[in-house]
Amino acid sequence: MAQAEDIVRIGLLGAGNVGAQVARTLVEERELISARVGTPVKLIGVAVRDPEAPRDWKIPGELLTTDAEALVDEADLIVELIGGYEPAGALIERALRRGAAVVTGNKALLATRGAELDAIAAETGAVLRYEASVGGAIPILRPIEESLSGDRITKVMGIVNGTTNYILDQMDTTGAAFGDALAEAQKLGYAEADPTADVEGHDAAAKAAILGTLAFHAPFTLDEVYCEGISQVTADDIEAAAASGYVIKLLAIAEKHDDGAVLRVHPTLLPRTHPLASVRGAFNAVFVVAENAGELMFYGQGAGGKPTSSAIMGDVVATARRLRASVAETPTVPAGAHLPALPIERATTQYYIDMQVADREGVIAEIAQVLADHHVSIESMRQPGSVSVEGEVESGESLGAQVQIVTHLALEKDLDATVKQLKSLDVVKSVTSVLRVEVEK
Amino acid sequence: MAQAEDIVRIGLLGAGNVGAQVARTLVEERELISARVGTPVKLIGVAVRDPEAPRDWKIPGELLTTDAEALVDEADLIVELIGGYEPAGALIERALRRGAAVVTGNKALLATRGAELDAIAAETGAVLRYEASVGGAIPILRPIEESLSGDRITKVMGIVNGTTNYILDQMDTTGAAFGDALAEAQKLGYAEADPTADVEGHDAAAKAAILGTLAFHAPFTLDEVYCEGISQVTADDIEAAAASGYVIKLLAIAEKHDDGAVLRVHPTLLPRTHPLASVRGAFNAVFVVAENAGELMFYGQGAGGKPTSSAIMGDVVATARRLRASVAETPTVPAGAHLPALPIERATTQYYIDMQVADREGVIAEIAQVLADHHVSIESMRQPGSVSVEGEVESGESLGAQVQIVTHLALEKDLDATVKQLKSLDVVKSVTSVLRVEVEK
Ligand SMILES: NC(=O)c1ccc[n+]([C@@H]2O[C@H](COP(=O)([O-])OP(=O)(O)OC[C@H]3O[C@@H](n4cnc5c(N)ncnc54)[C@H](OP(=O)(O)O)[C@@H]3O)[C@@H](O)[C@H]2O)c1
Ligand SMILES: NC(=O)c1ccc[n+]([C@@H]2O[C@H](COP(=O)([O-])OP(=O)(O)OC[C@H]3O[C@@H](n4cnc5c(N)ncnc54)[C@H](OP(=O)(O)O)[C@@H]3O)[C@@H](O)[C@H]2O)c1
Repeated sequence: MAQAEDIVRIGLLGAGNVGAQVARTLVEERELISARVGTPVKLIGVAVRDPEAPRDWKIPGELLTTDAEALVDEADLIVELIGGYEPAGALIERALRRGAAVVTGNKALLATRGAELDAIAAETGAVLRYEASVGGAIPILRPIEESLSGDRITKVMGIVNGTTNYILDQMDTTGAAFGDALAEAQKLGYAEADPTADVEGHDAAAKAAILGTLAFHAPFTLDEVYCEGISQVTADDIEAAAASGYVIKLLAIAEKHDDGAVLRVHPTLLPRTHPLASVRGAFNAVFVVAENAGELMFYGQGAGGKPTSSAIMGDVVATARRLRASVAETPTVPAGAHLPALPIERATTQYYIDMQVADREGVIAEIAQVLADHHVSIESMRQPGSVSVEGEVESGESLGAQVQIVTHLALEKDLDATVKQLKSLDVVKSVTSVLRVEVEK
Repeated sequence: MAQAEDIVRIGLLGAGNVGAQVARTLVEERELISARVGTPVKLIGVAVRDPEAPRDWKIPGELLTTDAEALVDEADLIVELIGGYEPAGALIERALRRGAAVVTGNKALLATRGAELDAIAAETGAVLRYEASVGGAIPILRPIEESLSGDRITKVMGIVNGTTNYILDQMDTTGAAFGDALAEAQKLGYAEADPTADVEGHDAAAKAAILGTLAFHAPFTLDEVYCEGISQVTADDIEAAAASGYVIKLLAIAEKHDDGAVLRVHPTLLPRTHPLASVRGAFNAVFVVAENAGELMFYGQGAGGKPTSSAIMGDVVATARRLRASVAETPTVPAGAHLPALPIERATTQYYIDMQVADREGVIAEIAQVLADHHVSIESMRQPGSVSVEGEVESGESLGAQVQIVTHLALEKDLDATVKQLKSLDVVKSVTSVLRVEVEK
């Protein structure tokens, strides 16, 4: 393995939705990834079924191969993104048996043969990691395995399938029947042509088995998970639930009892105030309850090539770090790293400005001009003092009026200059508040 | 260090809110923790200021000492929970210089001397971990350092101070002025007698420096964080923000620019629909945006002895695993581990039962009796069909009526038997839906 040499040679199996993004990162970001690992990494080959097939990112021809086995025998670290049971299972086993590290997102395989593959890895000292198999981009397995390793997890409960969450969401918001929502999801690419694995809960059940295994430190397999899908959920169910303040979600639940664990996947009513109730569309979220930590929630994109590739690459970097013989740890902050801390004037955010102004014509125009002069554009403006509850504007009063502005993204420096000039205007009596606003991200 | 022996000797510095819980876990759960590490661990001493002081968990007298330096010189792994700059800083440095591992929750120290301590650790090969320093129980540093190590983080934004979040929450929900909300928080123990560090944003700023350092792979210190607290936020600000659909939160933000990073802490308007807007009271949440992963959120208890001790113990286990010389990795699932997968009949959850019943007197009593006979108690019951929008009951119609029941926690087995018997009742025309309900946790 890499101990002998100075470079970590990576072999990628599969270049579909996720694999193509991993190939892109390993090629385009090779320097960054090598720096993160602390030793150079190199993508030495990409095994696919059809080298001519079009891909989301064009893979250099010399990397493509159809001989997956030869690639497995060459690499220090294998990234398996073919999916399904075979040939993925045999290829992973082959890699582990020769002591090569394996990173995969293959939940179906892990939920059936996970313990067996772990045992092979333990035998040869190989590393097997699979963060991407549950919750796409969401770091959930590593937090369970490491951050919570000194605690007792009692329950894990998550929305771990984006397809069913999208369908239930559509049914909830539009009143659509299951069949119509499914057809819509298929049209938009959120559901596969054969939606069985998602709709009947099998995909979520595989994830429940993986979550239960890591949370409770004992192996559980797919066939031990009680599984009910969403195909029986009717528009009436959703409507009745909504009328009582509930929303229906497909949850994967792993629950510890004194003498074992119950693993289950089924449509579940959640009060609309529950943190999981507002998880929409293709987003995933996993709730974890532990004795000391209490309630935790992890939220993010549950699928998609790019998000999933982030989880794969995290495993690749962490695993590659471990393959180095000499240094115990690659520091997150390399020695001598420097990035300037920029002054607040360089911040770009939205702003809320609340001011008292003279209540006469032309005031708004004058204020707007000041903002425009400083390249600060206005997202919204309100005059709460002069608008009655019925929405009628009562202008022309002699008392001052209130004006509230929310700007678009602006530079703090420009905002400062804007506020300074606003304060100097005759028509502005006072600037009561200037606050920053974060809308999304 | 532990390489030479077979046991990891742990020294604990401080036994206050967090330290007492760590002592409890290391003593009461010694077997569990040893199993998780894969090698025995032993708490060899607890350094405090006053051995006679009362503590949340009574520490065995023979463990207590006032000689922190001697303890540091004895242990393989030091857990520092004294807090503040000195003597904590000198003790951590002393431990790292002799190559001992250090786990701490000391954000103030990390945000000022983090780079220096990291350099000492790198020099001697010692491990320094501090997950508990940001977000209490929430796994946030490890996900940033490891799970996202193959991605580019562009922004981190969080509610990382429970005291200010509680105060702003109170102001928002009760209309209280800042001073009154602060006094209330002090009375309830959510704010310290001297609340400056929390209220003026210094605590959040330290966390912003730590988050920025790890997210952007370059050192940032507390004095590089722009910092505005909440003491200037008025009830009027909150009310005006609320009228426009915003809530005010104290956010710690670290944002990457091409030529540096802006780190800032200030009161911020968030739309009420923003995931961070609903984070209440002492809870914390951190939003992370990365190029491939997209938006992620981590949520949980941001402070408190028990929750924080979970993060400390996670670092202790992960670090102790690393101190072992022989085995590269302690598997999360030990070889031969077994826990029975229990059948769904053993699940305990709440249930929602929707049925069509004959619309005549005594029906409800008959149904309630069936539930009672099977030890299933009723949380709520609705008869939507017979209640008009104005709330008047229109009974006595000849058509069947609808009854919706939500049960308290019940055993699936009992619920199955209940439903079976309900179906056999003459007064029950059909059971339209039986769905499971999760209320909290
Ligand atoms: N997509 C997601 O959002 C997501 C999220 C989480 C986890 N995952 C998991 O990640 C894995 C990959 O998913 P994906 O969506 O990227 O799958 P995909 O788009 O179907 O791609 C599969 C790839 O494997 C290749 N392949 C198939 N059979 C092969 C063989 N015998 N030898 C060599 N290559 C072969 C295909 O080659 P050709 O291109 O030449 O046909 C294709 O490039 C699966 O385990 C999936 O469960 C996916
Ligand atoms: N509390 C939280 O929720 C929380 C959350 C996240 C991080 N943290 C961090 O965790 C650390 C500990 O917090 P805490 O709330 O547990 O603090 P605390 O309750 O004030 O406890 C401090 C402990 O340190 C001991 N101590 C003080 N000076 C000492 C000295 N010179 N030598 C030996 N022991 C000394 C005290 O001993 P006596 O008991 O004998 O006085 C006490 O046991 C801090 O860095 C804090 O920022 C705390």
